[in-house]
Amino acid sequence: MAKELKELTKRADNYSQWFNDLVVKADLAEQSAVRGCMVIKPYGYAIWEKMQQQLDKMFKETGAQNAYFPLLIPKSFLSKEAEHVEGFAKECAVVTHYRLRAKEDKSGVEVDPTAKLEEELIVRPTSETIIWNTYKNWIHSWRDLPLMCNQWCNVMRWEMRTRPFLRTSEFLWQEGHTAHATREEAEEEAQKMLKVYAKFAEEWMAVPVVQGVKSETERFAGALDTYTIEAMMQDGKALQSGTSHFLGQNFAKAFEVTYLNKENKPEYVWATSWGVSTRLIGALIMTHSDDNGLVLPPRLAPIQVVIIPIATKPEQMEQVNKEVTPIIEALRAKGITVKFDDADNKRPGFKFADYELKGVPVRLVLGARDLENGTIEVMRRDTLEKETRSIDGITEYVEQLLEDIQKNIFEKAKAYRDARIYECENYEEFKEKVKDGGFFLCHWDGTAETEAKIKEETQATIRCVPFGVEQTPGVDMVTGKPAKARVIIARSY
Amino acid sequence: MAKELKELTKRADNYSQWFNDLVVKADLAEQSAVRGCMVIKPYGYAIWEKMQQQLDKMFKETGAQNAYFPLLIPKSFLSKEAEHVEGFAKECAVVTHYRLRAKEDKSGVEVDPTAKLEEELIVRPTSETIIWNTYKNWIHSWRDLPLMCNQWCNVMRWEMRTRPFLRTSEFLWQEGHTAHATREEAEEEAQKMLKVYAKFAEEWMAVPVVQGVKSETERFAGALDTYTIEAMMQDGKALQSGTSHFLGQNFAKAFEVTYLNKENKPEYVWATSWGVSTRLIGALIMTHSDDNGLVLPPRLAPIQVVIIPIATKPEQMEQVNKEVTPIIEALRAKGITVKFDDADNKRPGFKFADYELKGVPVRLVLGARDLENGTIEVMRRDTLEKETRSIDGITEYVEQLLEDIQKNIFEKAKAYRDARIYECENYEEFKEKVKDGGFFLCHWDGTAETEAKIKEETQATIRCVPFGVEQTPGVDMVTGKPAKARVIIARSY
Repeated sequence: MAKELKELTKRADNYSQWFNDLVVKADLAEQSAVRGCMVIKPYGYAIWEKMQQQLDKMFKETGAQNAYFPLLIPKSFLSKEAEHVEGFAKECAVVTHYRLRAKEDKSGVEVDPTAKLEEELIVRPTSETIIWNTYKNWIHSWRDLPLMCNQWCNVMRWEMRTRPFLRTSEFLWQEGHTAHATREEAEEEAQKMLKVYAKFAEEWMAVPVVQGVKSETERFAGALDTYTIEAMMQDGKALQSGTSHFLGQNFAKAFEVTYLNKENKPEYVWATSWGVSTRLIGALIMTHSDDNGLVLPPRLAPIQVVIIPIATKPEQMEQVNKEVTPIIEALRAKGITVKFDDADNKRPGFKFADYELKGVPVRLVLGARDLENGTIEVMRRDTLEKETRSIDGITEYVEQLLEDIQKNIFEKAKAYRDARIYECENYEEFKEKVKDGGFFLCHWDGTAETEAKIKEETQATIRCVPFGVEQTPGVDMVTGKPAKARVIIARSY
Repeated sequence: MAKELKELTKRADNYSQWFNDLVVKADLAEQSAVRGCMVIKPYGYAIWEKMQQQLDKMFKETGAQNAYFPLLIPKSFLSKEAEHVEGFAKECAVVTHYRLRAKEDKSGVEVDPTAKLEEELIVRPTSETIIWNTYKNWIHSWRDLPLMCNQWCNVMRWEMRTRPFLRTSEFLWQEGHTAHATREEAEEEAQKMLKVYAKFAEEWMAVPVVQGVKSETERFAGALDTYTIEAMMQDGKALQSGTSHFLGQNFAKAFEVTYLNKENKPEYVWATSWGVSTRLIGALIMTHSDDNGLVLPPRLAPIQVVIIPIATKPEQMEQVNKEVTPIIEALRAKGITVKFDDADNKRPGFKFADYELKGVPVRLVLGARDLENGTIEVMRRDTLEKETRSIDGITEYVEQLLEDIQKNIFEKAKAYRDARIYECENYEEFKEKVKDGGFFLCHWDGTAETEAKIKEETQATIRCVPFGVEQTPGVDMVTGKPAKARVIIARSY
């Protein structure tokens, strides 16, 4: 059996270590030489590419266009929006010089003190400031609106505690930035993009999400409202997986972006921004995978089907090829990604374990007996169920099976989550129960004080005021005061 | 007529200004608030996306996989390869701190002196060092080779004089980094990727290129050989458009990357790297465009066909839609990108000029007389020729026309270039003639001294030893010494 597999920590033993192990052993990513920054390896990056491709299509369908804005932002830009600087200044990588020089003793290079920048530049933690400084020149009249740009790029937030995909100093993401003539239109856009994210999470990642709006404390720095999708991991913790912000006129005012309305009068523009990042890969891993390794949703799996021959005699290989070639061609013609692994330097048992570890949704195995009987063994990764089927009609069967797996892992994750959403009106009970994870639907008095108290005493936070949940009247479970909202509280990543 | 168009400088008046004007007026890019860094606007970025899509496909066909490596590189990594640090240290953006803090007087933020990095980090100017430091852990035996990764990312070189697309402090590019067991295999890879670039330039960008190898002086910092594709712009200057480097074992030795060969003995790995950047957009613009604006090759044009109705009466619009809808559908079914511009707030003359400026390859115009006659007006952007044709069979005609335009602009550029490749054996003649541009095929004695003298006296450089040109014997035109090679010399961007 594969050595790697044996070493994978069990989820029940240490969920956190299981995740870290899996990221490395499944060849998704690894720690780099730079603190807090990861290398995304080809297999992990292939998942990101599939995500990008689908999201990009969905964004363009809403009318957004891609563009590219500078990596470095003048320090002074950050200060223009008061809350924004408060939120990001503490975790900025700062460029202060633009040249190195050889050390006098020739032992290496050092910063050239004569090449100091007049104004320091920060590596973008997010791009609102540089983009709104640019939009100022692009927007003149109502005819220029709405303006909807997205960029795929890297950003940097100097995090003290990092974990691959979940929280890294550098990460890849997309950030959409839109400008609108009216408040209503901007609010609608922010909510529309949240729905795009939810659709992507559920239909492509097979990750069920709660949609909702953040409390003031948890808002994006500079937003009037932050909408979020929250997923539940297998340890019952929440993972914020995507956010969409209604920014009001804050950035328009900070960067003096006005347009002439139809009556030819200047008005400030209304804004949104929205983003998802490589964190989605973390959500994907932690929602579906098991003690044998990754379980990938077929729609995002870099390899959807692997075919492994078990031929003890070389002369059988010819027959294997004859049987397998039309299957591969037929699957590829259906747009299915197939890998045929006939490498002779690894034993079948090693290969089985390796593709399980990598989460390949369907495995087909062709052995000597199958050659005699015109059959093939089919294994589905999600349930690990095996069956032997006739080769006739196998491509249609596999095509349907991929859809079944996609559906099944979503249903499984949803059942898991739904069983862990608790209505709770008693703080003592909450404090006890929250240790085991889960989403707690509670009444909240709407104050930041209560929110802070819950966080301090339980490490749980208000994830959102969920949409689609009845806002029943009630009293705050902590203070007993009349509730302002019914919220979901959970520990989170 | 369009105001913008009138303001476009003529190529004959000031080629350089024409280029700068065109980049801005065609909405491709603009200067940002950060010195030397541009904003790539949606229309310009759409061209880059088309380039990426095709190149990515071609890279993957060679077996390369995408991955992602950190933006920031420890300063000490740069010093590990002696020539590499020499080449890049002078133009590095250096991150020295990881936090800002509020100024005491609350007037903004300043660098927090307590958050100084132990070792400075540089923003990658190219990624050989961080990648080879990573490859060290990925490569153990000959079975791990070849290893071929590519990344699409941003890089930064602090340039003193910048021009949009051609030379910017930050630019987007791809960088391939490969590791091989033998010298031969690595050399073959470097040459193979040069051919991929040449194929892309000629077949997709319609830009004819000279393929060749650089002189030692012009090599990439750390390479044993740099292969290049050189295009000629309309002012006769050369534009280096893509390079592929055979790196020998320099980086393997610097980062101690060895593999166990089939005899189980450790050996250093052989390396290549290869890259093209957003500079290709500069090459595209300067090769084909004219005094009316951009001329885009159909294969990379974000909009391939624009359809403009000229309807004076509102009741005609219904008929226009009836005629146009099946044409749009039929073109889209063929994979052709169509824009139907029936906006009523711009006059047809303005639209005509605007789409010419933006280089849309084919324009279809439907006027009142066309509606009566069942005809449509077709204009091709490359020659500006117009003709009126029957609507019957128009989609097949347009499909063929796009191919004709693609071919025609390549042939035109090639004829232009070929007429400006001069064989030259006389330095005095060279000095006079090179002022007007062109590629000069000359004998060279192979010394850096002669190369430097030519550069100093004429601003021209050795672009490459071209492939496919006979290496006839001869004497150096400057020194009269026996020639080591026949080279192409030109002024360049």
